[in-house]
Amino acid sequence: MCRLAAYLGTEIPLENIIARPRHSLLVQSLDAQEAKLRVNGDGFGIAWYGHLPEPGLFKDVLPAWADTNLRSICRLVRSPLFLAHVRAATTGATSRDNCHPFTYGSWSFMHNGGIGDFPLIRRDMELLIPDPYYGARRGTTDSELFFHLLLTNGLETDPLQALRISIAQVLELVDRHRATEKPVRLTCVFSEGTRIFAFRYSNDGQAPSLYRSDNLDHGGRAVASEPLEGQCARWKPLLENMLLEISAEGTIELPLLADGALADPAPGAAAVPVQERAAAGPA
Amino acid sequence: MCRLAAYLGTEIPLENIIARPRHSLLVQSLDAQEAKLRVNGDGFGIAWYGHLPEPGLFKDVLPAWADTNLRSICRLVRSPLFLAHVRAATTGATSRDNCHPFTYGSWSFMHNGGIGDFPLIRRDMELLIPDPYYGARRGTTDSELFFHLLLTNGLETDPLQALRISIAQVLELVDRHRATEKPVRLTCVFSEGTRIFAFRYSNDGQAPSLYRSDNLDHGGRAVASEPLEGQCARWKPLLENMLLEISAEGTIELPLLADGALADPAPGAAAVPVQERAAAGPA
Amino acid sequence: MCRLAAYLGTEIPLENIIARPRHSLLVQSLDAQEAKLRVNGDGFGIAWYGHLPEPGLFKDVLPAWADTNLRSICRLVRSPLFLAHVRAATTGATSRDNCHPFTYGSWSFMHNGGIGDFPLIRRDMELLIPDPYYGARRGTTDSELFFHLLLTNGLETDPLQALRISIAQVLELVDRHRATEKPVRLTCVFSEGTRIFAFRYSNDGQAPSLYRSDNLDHGGRAVASEPLEGQCARWKPLLENMLLEISAEGTIELPLLADGALADPAPGAAAVPVQERAAAGPA
Amino acid sequence: MCRLAAYLGTEIPLENIIARPRHSLLVQSLDAQEAKLRVNGDGFGIAWYGHLPEPGLFKDVLPAWADTNLRSICRLVRSPLFLAHVRAATTGATSRDNCHPFTYGSWSFMHNGGIGDFPLIRRDMELLIPDPYYGARRGTTDSELFFHLLLTNGLETDPLQALRISIAQVLELVDRHRATEKPVRLTCVFSEGTRIFAFRYSNDGQAPSLYRSDNLDHGGRAVASEPLEGQCARWKPLLENMLLEISAEGTIELPLLADGALADPAPGAAAVPVQERAAAGPA
Repeated sequence: MCRLAAYLGTEIPLENIIARPRHSLLVQSLDAQEAKLRVNGDGFGIAWYGHLPEPGLFKDVLPAWADTNLRSICRLVRSPLFLAHVRAATTGATSRDNCHPFTYGSWSFMHNGGIGDFPLIRRDMELLIPDPYYGARRGTTDSELFFHLLLTNGLETDPLQALRISIAQVLELVDRHRATEKPVRLTCVFSEGTRIFAFRYSNDGQAPSLYRSDNLDHGGRAVASEPLEGQCARWKPLLENMLLEISAEGTIELPLLADGALADPAPGAAAVPVQERAAAGPA
Repeated sequence: MCRLAAYLGTEIPLENIIARPRHSLLVQSLDAQEAKLRVNGDGFGIAWYGHLPEPGLFKDVLPAWADTNLRSICRLVRSPLFLAHVRAATTGATSRDNCHPFTYGSWSFMHNGGIGDFPLIRRDMELLIPDPYYGARRGTTDSELFFHLLLTNGLETDPLQALRISIAQVLELVDRHRATEKPVRLTCVFSEGTRIFAFRYSNDGQAPSLYRSDNLDHGGRAVASEPLEGQCARWKPLLENMLLEISAEGTIELPLLADGALADPAPGAAAVPVQERAAAGPA
Repeated sequence: MCRLAAYLGTEIPLENIIARPRHSLLVQSLDAQEAKLRVNGDGFGIAWYGHLPEPGLFKDVLPAWADTNLRSICRLVRSPLFLAHVRAATTGATSRDNCHPFTYGSWSFMHNGGIGDFPLIRRDMELLIPDPYYGARRGTTDSELFFHLLLTNGLETDPLQALRISIAQVLELVDRHRATEKPVRLTCVFSEGTRIFAFRYSNDGQAPSLYRSDNLDHGGRAVASEPLEGQCARWKPLLENMLLEISAEGTIELPLLADGALADPAPGAAAVPVQERAAAGPA
Repeated sequence: MCRLAAYLGTEIPLENIIARPRHSLLVQSLDAQEAKLRVNGDGFGIAWYGHLPEPGLFKDVLPAWADTNLRSICRLVRSPLFLAHVRAATTGATSRDNCHPFTYGSWSFMHNGGIGDFPLIRRDMELLIPDPYYGARRGTTDSELFFHLLLTNGLETDPLQALRISIAQVLELVDRHRATEKPVRLTCVFSEGTRIFAFRYSNDGQAPSLYRSDNLDHGGRAVASEPLEGQCARWKPLLENMLLEISAEGTIELPLLADGALADPAPGAAAVPVQERAAAGPA
């Protein structure tokens, strides 16, 4: 489990979200209140948007609370849109490559939760990813792979549809490999530099917590695993199965499931390895 | 605050103390029960004795629970005498140089607690250390400095007397600088390769916890911040103001305070900077 | 490119190979004489055998010459058989997971060179690895994958045959994907705890250098990228296409190529993804 | 020895100095041409000025060429004034605290060279630093201590005079302790956020190299250990014993030595420990 936060609004120093609030992400890294694991000390990461389409990326393996670089960067760097993540490694080594967020071109992505029994479906999940995205794989987490699956399924053109297909594919693989002992829990936040997307999905109704606030100082909007100022009226919990799309214009909530069901994995989408599909490549 | 453990007995893999017991040092690093801070994730260190007089030293800044090297070394390295420490940084950066144990020649030393208001007395404390020891200073902690003070006061020839003088000097400095807002708490464990010394001292009766066990499997002896197997008859709490000396022959308890009082800091020992003292140098 | 060394003989401190010789591996890390890159500062690793079948493993991302832990461990840890590696990252991030050696059960493996155009054949190479080995993949290097390919092809029962098949498979993939712009260069050293295997193979006659010495002090045997004492009679260069098998009994040289040719990739070995093969699993 | 660079001008991405030029600081870290040590892989650091008086500070222990965070920050962070440093540790451990630049309030400072036989004069040099500055000491380098000495001697009000006094004090200590076996070499660059100061001083005429350019693109000014574009007319070597003061208005060169001699260490400045001086405190 992990804790995360993201912000969109007027340009502010990163610390206004990550370090300064009473229950900031740094505080949550040492003392999470709504997570299975109270301590999130296995690395951290931030992705922030500036004068380039591609976000800046800063990740390290130290606990967020102890990293002097993080503190300095959060104080000096200002951004109108950024993502931040503190990690509690459930499996695998602590390495920069396994820290969130992950980036691809202008996209950044972070995840809280887990694709239960991931080792059982890892291979087939990898086969769904075409080479251009697969070649960008740096670490070994289920999170990064799910991000690449989203990209494969059209994240760059239709995030909602990409999500529907990707979740359906994961569920199909889980089902096929009877990898059902552990739940699939996906609380994800991602961006392409102008909007923040966020959703909670699980197959056991227990996706990690996520809250939103639409009226921070100066009109900023944010999501966070736990309210940054402690429980208060400014922060509202996100329901499961809703996709939040936050932009300068406002916040839209879209049902993640079309007509109560996930998208049909579509013409062979889930079952057929990428090699055998028509030479699609990334959209 | 920190958690620590040390072992003396037949040669065993380090993991038998550090990783395997139900409430091992690794478990304590993530979930200390008797410490002010539950999480001790700001680095760790081990010092172990082998075929050389000088101990091996392995320290790193990652949380102990996440370090793959530590796990491998604990499994493979066997030693008849070793010290281990997990750190919760109260002040200062997380760096290898600030991790315990510290070593000097054949001596190793680790500390749990703090010399309250250390910044106020740091300078004068440094002035008590002659150059040969002072030149060995690597980090910026009060702990390392207290170790060098012990060496200055004859640790290598008479540990008990060195302790008495050193504590008296610290108290004298605390008093002189009115650095009395925070307590002096010293729970220390150290060794020269054949014996383990351990004591708890504080000026407010609240030195960090320490337990001893004299009958581990195969006759091993150990001290630890918290009983390694959880509370049980094999582990007994250490009283304050007693110096424990553990050797192959057995365990001796010596009153830290002579006649209920600390050693007189001696002919000008505390107040006079080392430069002006007769050219003593290390014993 | 990288530099590496391995030792088999009476138990010695690791430093006798890694740090003490005039042209030790540490010296080579900063000033390699026979490598394309003079500086090998992108991490290091050691695997050593002790009282357990599985070797100890210690890797880190700092330059070997700067790592205080490495120096201490090399001084204190003694072993009758160990491998050591310093890395010059040609691609990819510096991470512990990408440092050599890699281990699997009692086997350890390290590589110097590169499978040219690896990105082009990575996917198909991965498909040759059955799940039990694939699940052990930690990093993203061609080296680790080649190790898993060796395991897949029976390293644990017949190293020579496993090598022949694996090299043939790699060449077949290189050919199939026309990934021929960069050469395939494999200078590898590996062990299961009683023997050291070493070979140089390339498809352009320029495999990275490797030397052997059969008469170190006390009868020890070693291989190293460059002679540890500088050029001298005690160190002899390894020819390409010979597999060296070093054991307590002596050193055997076997032609890597059967009858001047690599093993036939065998009944569909190279071309058929592992999924479609009879449910083989690891031998 | 180390390599360094600093920039003042219109706001540019840090990479324009650190990573992009043909002979950028990153290139110099791996292949310095005018330094005693070709490889500068023992950590790096950057200090940059933004919307706050205090600069941002980012330091790490990996070789600069291998650090993915550094590359990303250099690409995204823009600044009108920044300092950058790659380190070749001559003594002491590689740690973030020992990496340059060092900061104090709005000041940042970096150094290339060494105060020869530093261990011999360290203690007395420390005694010259009053508590407020001394308490800010994080590492154990001569460089950081010289920075604190500059602050002690009035860096914040009169940099030239502070330099003159500080160098004289160092020379006096070197003389007093007969610490003359190794030379004193100081090539330093520092800033308070609006100006860059730079000088070369040595007592053997061999201060590490430093070049200046006053007409980078868009009118930027810079100093660097080696010309960032290779030898060319845009870069001029700095003479020894001249203090360069670079501001938006232009560049001034001041003789470091008043009338060919350093400032008199002044009323007991060098010889008298700070404790015994009139309670001066920082200016």
